[in-house]
Amino acid sequence: MGEALNSWKRTIMCGELREEHIGQKVTVMGWVQRNRNLGGLEFVDLRDRTGILQVVFGEVINKEAFEKANKVRPEYCIAIKGEIIRREAPNNAMATGMVELKGEEIKILSESETPPIYIKDNLDAAENIRLKYRYLDLRRSDMQKILMIRSKTAKAVRDYLVNSEFLEIETPMLTKSTPEGARDYLVPSRNYPGMFYALPQSPQLFKQLLMVSGFDKYFQIVKCFRDEDLRANRQPEFTQIDLEMSFVEQDDVMELNEGLIKHVFKEVGNIDVKLPIRRMPYKEAMEKYGSDKPDLRFGMEIRDLSETVKNAEFKVFQDALENGGSVRAICLKDGANMGRKDIDRLGEFVKTFKAKGLAWIQLKEEEIKSPISKFLKEDELKNIIDVMSAETGDMILIVADKNSVVFQSLGQLRLELAKKYDLIKDKNEFNFCWITEFPLLEYDEEEGRYFAAHHPFTCPMDEDLEYLESDPGRVRAKAYDLVLNGEELGGGSIRIHDTKLQERMFGVLGFTQESAWERFGFLLEAFKFGPPPHGGLAFGFDRMIMFLAGTDNIKDVIAFPKNQNAFCPMTEAPNVADEKQLVELGISLNKEDK
Amino acid sequence: MGEALNSWKRTIMCGELREEHIGQKVTVMGWVQRNRNLGGLEFVDLRDRTGILQVVFGEVINKEAFEKANKVRPEYCIAIKGEIIRREAPNNAMATGMVELKGEEIKILSESETPPIYIKDNLDAAENIRLKYRYLDLRRSDMQKILMIRSKTAKAVRDYLVNSEFLEIETPMLTKSTPEGARDYLVPSRNYPGMFYALPQSPQLFKQLLMVSGFDKYFQIVKCFRDEDLRANRQPEFTQIDLEMSFVEQDDVMELNEGLIKHVFKEVGNIDVKLPIRRMPYKEAMEKYGSDKPDLRFGMEIRDLSETVKNAEFKVFQDALENGGSVRAICLKDGANMGRKDIDRLGEFVKTFKAKGLAWIQLKEEEIKSPISKFLKEDELKNIIDVMSAETGDMILIVADKNSVVFQSLGQLRLELAKKYDLIKDKNEFNFCWITEFPLLEYDEEEGRYFAAHHPFTCPMDEDLEYLESDPGRVRAKAYDLVLNGEELGGGSIRIHDTKLQERMFGVLGFTQESAWERFGFLLEAFKFGPPPHGGLAFGFDRMIMFLAGTDNIKDVIAFPKNQNAFCPMTEAPNVADEKQLVELGISLNKEDK
Repeated sequence: MGEALNSWKRTIMCGELREEHIGQKVTVMGWVQRNRNLGGLEFVDLRDRTGILQVVFGEVINKEAFEKANKVRPEYCIAIKGEIIRREAPNNAMATGMVELKGEEIKILSESETPPIYIKDNLDAAENIRLKYRYLDLRRSDMQKILMIRSKTAKAVRDYLVNSEFLEIETPMLTKSTPEGARDYLVPSRNYPGMFYALPQSPQLFKQLLMVSGFDKYFQIVKCFRDEDLRANRQPEFTQIDLEMSFVEQDDVMELNEGLIKHVFKEVGNIDVKLPIRRMPYKEAMEKYGSDKPDLRFGMEIRDLSETVKNAEFKVFQDALENGGSVRAICLKDGANMGRKDIDRLGEFVKTFKAKGLAWIQLKEEEIKSPISKFLKEDELKNIIDVMSAETGDMILIVADKNSVVFQSLGQLRLELAKKYDLIKDKNEFNFCWITEFPLLEYDEEEGRYFAAHHPFTCPMDEDLEYLESDPGRVRAKAYDLVLNGEELGGGSIRIHDTKLQERMFGVLGFTQESAWERFGFLLEAFKFGPPPHGGLAFGFDRMIMFLAGTDNIKDVIAFPKNQNAFCPMTEAPNVADEKQLVELGISLNKEDK
Repeated sequence: MGEALNSWKRTIMCGELREEHIGQKVTVMGWVQRNRNLGGLEFVDLRDRTGILQVVFGEVINKEAFEKANKVRPEYCIAIKGEIIRREAPNNAMATGMVELKGEEIKILSESETPPIYIKDNLDAAENIRLKYRYLDLRRSDMQKILMIRSKTAKAVRDYLVNSEFLEIETPMLTKSTPEGARDYLVPSRNYPGMFYALPQSPQLFKQLLMVSGFDKYFQIVKCFRDEDLRANRQPEFTQIDLEMSFVEQDDVMELNEGLIKHVFKEVGNIDVKLPIRRMPYKEAMEKYGSDKPDLRFGMEIRDLSETVKNAEFKVFQDALENGGSVRAICLKDGANMGRKDIDRLGEFVKTFKAKGLAWIQLKEEEIKSPISKFLKEDELKNIIDVMSAETGDMILIVADKNSVVFQSLGQLRLELAKKYDLIKDKNEFNFCWITEFPLLEYDEEEGRYFAAHHPFTCPMDEDLEYLESDPGRVRAKAYDLVLNGEELGGGSIRIHDTKLQERMFGVLGFTQESAWERFGFLLEAFKFGPPPHGGLAFGFDRMIMFLAGTDNIKDVIAFPKNQNAFCPMTEAPNVADEKQLVELGISLNKEDK
């Protein structure tokens, strides 16, 4: 049985102790990181959330305390009173390494069994064990630091937005399906058996209604839910920084968010974000980087060879061009000596993105080596090399196909090569970019109709409005994504606030008036009563923390995450429900699942 | 179709304009509160979230703007450019009443149909209409002010706690049943058909695990869920300020929270809370006020007459005393002339709390009037009057029964009389009180066993530990509630952090080791690894806002609340679910509910 505190009060945290404290009497509390008996003295490394302090007990200091200290083991929770003294052999690896605590009294607050995972950084225990004993995993200082960063980031976001006259307003968790298109989590209703609430995929409709209500500037750091198959770095519940503003245009929203990002990254990570953040239209991002979230920390831009090879007698090129596609390429510096095996691997790689193949040209010292050189006239080859600005020692990698395949395969190949050849030199670079002028609509071949690329309330660009019905595919949206190092950090848009334009939009999306009203009726109804011009943005908060904490695993930034099956090994949720409760909810389990 | 902003930028908010702005060119945006044509001028009251500004348009000022202004109607969303001028006839009822805006340009951003509810304060429209058109209801300045108070309160809470070294850490929404005992909302799992997550009733277990993890000081402003029948001022989802601290005892937690309350009430409401807040043991609160959340804004304390009447030949008193009950009373000042009808109503009132009846003594000028005077000797009557400190003109109200009935009926009677006779003189008084030394356990007559009064992890008081098994009913807990004006604002406890004591507690609660592990296994497992002494508290955030905003309706403090049937008339949630999705979840609707 552990000892009680009995009015002992902690006076200082372990990690705070420095030479200036020498001679002070202190009381510290925490966990035994390790302990060892050396030369008749008992040394205990005591850990709390701020760091580790060495404590020394000796028979001559205090016999009783010494004997008790001999009993402690790693992860015991203890409290110690004593005097801070200068450490005879300073340890420069520890922040508190100049001092130690002469332990005069000790309380064993609670004992510990041997923990099933080590409490140390860079632990490589299996993930499910770490998740099962999450409370022990969270004792590791690297996990503690991440959750401290998370807390600090939330505070910095709120400070900035409240200071910018934003109101934090909570929106419902038990609500109706939102129009994001992913699968909702459902919550059966007891008052209306057979009916269901949906957990929100985002507060999109509610924040727009708050603008109709005249709240002017809204934000929320809020849990959102998607019942999707979990890819890496997806969790069933995730957190968004969600915001919306009235009486604004696209530039106003972007400017506000640049200020927010600059403040947060400086405050939390001491990272200087230079403003204004570069802007790039979607079309340029696709053509140069094959992606709407380009990683701009390195070059290797895609270039268009279609014009250059338009007369080349190479069927693959001709087929692509005749079918409205293109021939494009990237240039890998110093790739001229890549071996056949590696080249073949790259060929396989682009095939996973539906490219039919990868053509290449190696500019070796002695020769130009390429499987397609026989199809190219000398001046065509020269022109390709010119367009690609390729130099001796480089390698040109070419894909010919329909544009979507060319962009995706070369865009991914570019990232793959950057990883493989370590092309990102400054690991601490934070390269931000706004992507703008997104397509408003995406055509779905299977369903044979257009879908909203963002959501159905996104406002078309004024200059493209006239094509909304006649050529929907060319209409661009007042939408913008903030991209950081090749990842989407957030995105948003100016919304339609005009009922007639909204009806045109629904028409293009193939909604009947009835089906539109069934899904979004309350928003359309609200828009009858003087909706203001408005727009907003949502950041992935978990993703932001991953950047600030320097981890690429979303589970690291969430205190109690789920595994890939949306299961929590610690609490064993989900779990069975009480039959009686199911009856109240008006639902039964299907037989095969019982 | 509304006009576009076309780079118009708002330069100032309507409610901010004062004499100092006279002569300035401004751009304001908002909604038409009302408009009228007077003497060839068009006056428009423009409203935004900060207030109302009068705008005047005239043919001589700008003919085009004047004509356009003539077309606006209430709730049109408009933008106006012009010059601030001195108002000829100042309106002292308006903050902006010294000035008006000479309207030189106007944009009609969107039109409005006639709204189904008036946008004005103290609206008495039916609740369901207000909820259906919540976005219009929220345009009213009193609703806007409340949500601004809510946002400001959340910020003040976070500022104080982060400044006190607390970390805000998010806990899961999709989790396992918590031990609060109310009914959980369930969320069917798709990965494990037939299994369910539960939405949290509180983050209780997770915050304790965070203490095991060494986070030391945790807080969260967090949504919680209870699927209970909705009484007044209950909502299916509500918000808590939840916090937990390690290495603390009861006084430490109370002191921290006193500081928090003082800061928040000062910051948000300019209300001075005097510290330390008064403390009262549960027993005293029950004996004096018949309630564990006493309203201390007025006196009328309950007094015990048991000793005084122990020999009275009145069967009702004797029965009560013989059955271990008591005879207690309150004294209503100036109640001697209450009429028979009113007295009968009070008799009916106490019967709703299971009292068999209400005895009374009126000290009239001319006589002492009482239906029980015939049972009392003269000195008994005199002693009663003495004990009650009753004076001529007063009325004594007596209940004799078992203690729980006496306390509840007199406690409620006391509140009822205070309301009826307006005994709370200072409506702006904020009378805080800590209630301490709560019973650890409550005996359930029906089930014939003890239940945890707070929750099973609440720590018994050291001095009562020895009675845990032998006399569980007398064991008091290290639990504390903060009461404000007769309402529970928050409550918490020091938790058990000792596995052996926790096992004893489960034993008293009638859990087998298996059943305890099945429900709380992961917490018990965690406690094997050096749990720190810890304790915490949770405030009802919605309740706190109700106090700060001066409303007694919880729906006023929530942006999008549900009605009494947990239904949202605006979104029509809950609603039907897609059959295909139910199949994926492995559930079916019961036939009678289809």
